[in-house]
Amino acid sequence: MDIVERTVEKGVVEERFDLKVDAEVVPGIRWSPEAADGPTATILVGHGGTQHKRVPNVLGLARTFVRHLGVTVLALDAPGHGDRVTDPAAAEKARARLQSRIAERKGAMELSAEEARAWTERTRAGVVEWRALVDDIEAGGRHDGRLGYWGVSMGTAIGLPFVAAEPRVNAAVLGLAGLNARPGAADFEAAARSLTLPVLFLFQWDDELMSRESGIALFDAIGSKEKTMHINPGGHVFLPQFERAGAVEFFRRHLVEPG
Amino acid sequence: MDIVERTVEKGVVEERFDLKVDAEVVPGIRWSPEAADGPTATILVGHGGTQHKRVPNVLGLARTFVRHLGVTVLALDAPGHGDRVTDPAAAEKARARLQSRIAERKGAMELSAEEARAWTERTRAGVVEWRALVDDIEAGGRHDGRLGYWGVSMGTAIGLPFVAAEPRVNAAVLGLAGLNARPGAADFEAAARSLTLPVLFLFQWDDELMSRESGIALFDAIGSKEKTMHINPGGHVFLPQFERAGAVEFFRRHLVEPG
Repeated sequence: MDIVERTVEKGVVEERFDLKVDAEVVPGIRWSPEAADGPTATILVGHGGTQHKRVPNVLGLARTFVRHLGVTVLALDAPGHGDRVTDPAAAEKARARLQSRIAERKGAMELSAEEARAWTERTRAGVVEWRALVDDIEAGGRHDGRLGYWGVSMGTAIGLPFVAAEPRVNAAVLGLAGLNARPGAADFEAAARSLTLPVLFLFQWDDELMSRESGIALFDAIGSKEKTMHINPGGHVFLPQFERAGAVEFFRRHLVEPG
Repeated sequence: MDIVERTVEKGVVEERFDLKVDAEVVPGIRWSPEAADGPTATILVGHGGTQHKRVPNVLGLARTFVRHLGVTVLALDAPGHGDRVTDPAAAEKARARLQSRIAERKGAMELSAEEARAWTERTRAGVVEWRALVDDIEAGGRHDGRLGYWGVSMGTAIGLPFVAAEPRVNAAVLGLAGLNARPGAADFEAAARSLTLPVLFLFQWDDELMSRESGIALFDAIGSKEKTMHINPGGHVFLPQFERAGAVEFFRRHLVEPG
């Protein structure tokens, strides 16, 4: 990765970097403890649909993980998101459409054939990019081998296949997702069933996009012996902030102080 | 309460006490921080069926709450349990029956008419005794008014009606229970719907005594705006020990450092 900017705030170093993956330049951010004097554990954070690598929730999570766990946190702009938006008007339209979908409680987005292809391609590319990032940090000497992943909603749509395909990930927080008739649903379910790493699965009881049954079915499908589902009232974008503390405890147990 | 014995271990004072409730003497234990120099918050811990006030899980929880939250913890022997067992052979028979019920995955115990009456009476008396204990600590000068309750299985069968009837309780951990055709089921469901305090609801995904549907229905029925359900794989008696840390975080948020 090429570091393009570096700032320090309250003990947290924040570095903007570019990662080359094939012909793409993927922009990312690394947050790390200013006090670190050697390699640390790493947590990857995948943002949600229409979001980017530095939305308030990702930034808040990153700072919380760095400060409470002493780990390094990495986030990437997902394909077609953040600095990788090539058609701002289309991105704005997608955001508005998702918001109205939530407002009207219409369930998962109905996709045209073209959108379904784009969804499948985004998932494929997203997985490739996370794996390239893990290769990069393994070569960089600052990662000690303990690796976690946090991502809900689109962060699970991409992150679940990623952690299923990536034995180097030791523990994952997933959520705001379910088993339903999305493009690649059979592959997604197979990936869930193949999981063996500890999983914390977050779900919103009044999610406008995911039915309760679909969320419970996904939790049930997850193959991991160590898995916990946290259900809270409220809609898709109202995951309670205290679930950050839950994620800290989860990563402390399985990543930072296992056993 | 009358203190009948006092020991100190690793900063935790443990006091056996007797509480007079009408004609009954209810034996209890108080655990408190040795370093406390004034009133503290209090957490009541209700044990499960066939257990007593000092089974390993109650003791472990009590010491965890005292050490991590600086609170005082109180436990009572439920009616007909612990030092209040009047017919040891019958108690042993009940324990064996419950264990075989779990081993055979037979669902909630089938109760005779006499057992159903005993269940209803135990719940009624248990609620009266917890309320008497709260009156007692309010008069005692060592309780600062912040009050929590932790109890699963029979600790919810008694504890849910208790916290529903007792506005002095500020936050409750409940679980290993569901909505099903037990004696007093309609009253139990009504109590659940009337709840307004923050609730953490613990459930085991492979509970031999409670169906998944009944547990989810109970979580759904709980009227509180602030409620979270934690689901873990495993049977009725295999609630993961890490849920102690979850309860600590829950009581920290709602009892010890609210807002």
